[in-house]
Amino acid sequence: MPPLKPYSAALPYSYAPGVFPSLQLMQNCPQRAQRLLLSEKAQGEGVDKLRELCRRHHVREEVADKALARISGKQNCFAAVVFEKWQSELAPAAPHVVLHHPMDEGNLGTIQRTLLGLGIRDIAVIRPAADVFDPRVVRATMGAVFSLRVKYYEDFSLYRMEHPAHALYPFMLDGAVVLEQAVAQVQRPYALVFGNEGSGLPPEFAQLGQAVRIPHSNEIDSLNLSIAVGIGAYAFVHAAD
Amino acid sequence: MPPLKPYSAALPYSYAPGVFPSLQLMQNCPQRAQRLLLSEKAQGEGVDKLRELCRRHHVREEVADKALARISGKQNCFAAVVFEKWQSELAPAAPHVVLHHPMDEGNLGTIQRTLLGLGIRDIAVIRPAADVFDPRVVRATMGAVFSLRVKYYEDFSLYRMEHPAHALYPFMLDGAVVLEQAVAQVQRPYALVFGNEGSGLPPEFAQLGQAVRIPHSNEIDSLNLSIAVGIGAYAFVHAAD
Repeated sequence: MPPLKPYSAALPYSYAPGVFPSLQLMQNCPQRAQRLLLSEKAQGEGVDKLRELCRRHHVREEVADKALARISGKQNCFAAVVFEKWQSELAPAAPHVVLHHPMDEGNLGTIQRTLLGLGIRDIAVIRPAADVFDPRVVRATMGAVFSLRVKYYEDFSLYRMEHPAHALYPFMLDGAVVLEQAVAQVQRPYALVFGNEGSGLPPEFAQLGQAVRIPHSNEIDSLNLSIAVGIGAYAFVHAAD
Repeated sequence: MPPLKPYSAALPYSYAPGVFPSLQLMQNCPQRAQRLLLSEKAQGEGVDKLRELCRRHHVREEVADKALARISGKQNCFAAVVFEKWQSELAPAAPHVVLHHPMDEGNLGTIQRTLLGLGIRDIAVIRPAADVFDPRVVRATMGAVFSLRVKYYEDFSLYRMEHPAHALYPFMLDGAVVLEQAVAQVQRPYALVFGNEGSGLPPEFAQLGQAVRIPHSNEIDSLNLSIAVGIGAYAFVHAAD
């Protein structure tokens, strides 16, 4: 078997670092799993469950402390499952969240976990963007990525061609309507569109749909991206029918 | 003048690392500023504005590249203002957020910035807790800490003795009412109470007020603390009167 490499976006596989993300992987998409890497020190209920799931799905187990340290960059990573990366298709009638040029791995992970919690499973990511399969992102999602459909697009227009019927709600600092008003008149299915952490969405997005703003005081420049996604998605998910 | 030390919670002073947080400090509480540390490489509009504000408030400027690297732990910190730490009192009739044992510096910073943006300025922090004056937190708030009133308490009961009239809303995974329902019947002034990142609030908090839950799917254990604070505070701030 070829030696495992430190993660890079070009590799066809990645790592779910840690027992909890590895369990999420084995429970939600065991067909993607290739190898289970264990530390000599790995023990406990979670590890037992992980080994049992891997046995059941014929995923080979190996003691690989050096590989774990190399791929995780940490000394205290006791387990990781190597998995094959994949492309998802977004569900055509479900609500979507579109992330335009998200660059921060931590944000991308928190956003995925938040959206899974709020019941939104379909995420379009417009490049350039952080890599959803980066082990740091997988760790930050706590494995939520294995329950979501995430699809990358080279350009927003390519997303739009595939999903022309979604009502678009670009979140912008100067959006024409406030969140509460947008939610009161929501059209379905909807796609909530969020821009880059630093620069937000380009101005022309205001013409593509109903631009929304989350009101905030002028004492801050903007809300953190993951907070804005949390507030926006919560409001839309709980919109009265 | 005594040499500056790497930050520790025991020091009577701290650092606002970076041009932007330093500007926020000089604009909002210049009376706390003690010294301006500049890199030889510091330049640009922000730096000019910072130097001008420091001159106006008689804050001594010094070139101190070594001190900047030592206190920030980074090579690219071009400016920092040394400031005296202080204790605030919470406004008695304003809405409060109470953070019970928050331990993560990044969360604490994001929460402060979010609350300032949503218009909540009064934050009680119950120890043990991360240090709001830690330069990493100051950086994560983007200087919002200089516009807020943050007070530490050794115990929740000490907060409660000072502010007995606030209607308490503990946020708990098994809270008796959902957020929308709590908001529809909100009593003022209110205090929104959030627990530790990992363990949440102790069960007895459910008896102290109207326990609230933010509904989420059982596919995640809980929302990230800063996301929960963002969603909860947004909903309360925008409650109909």
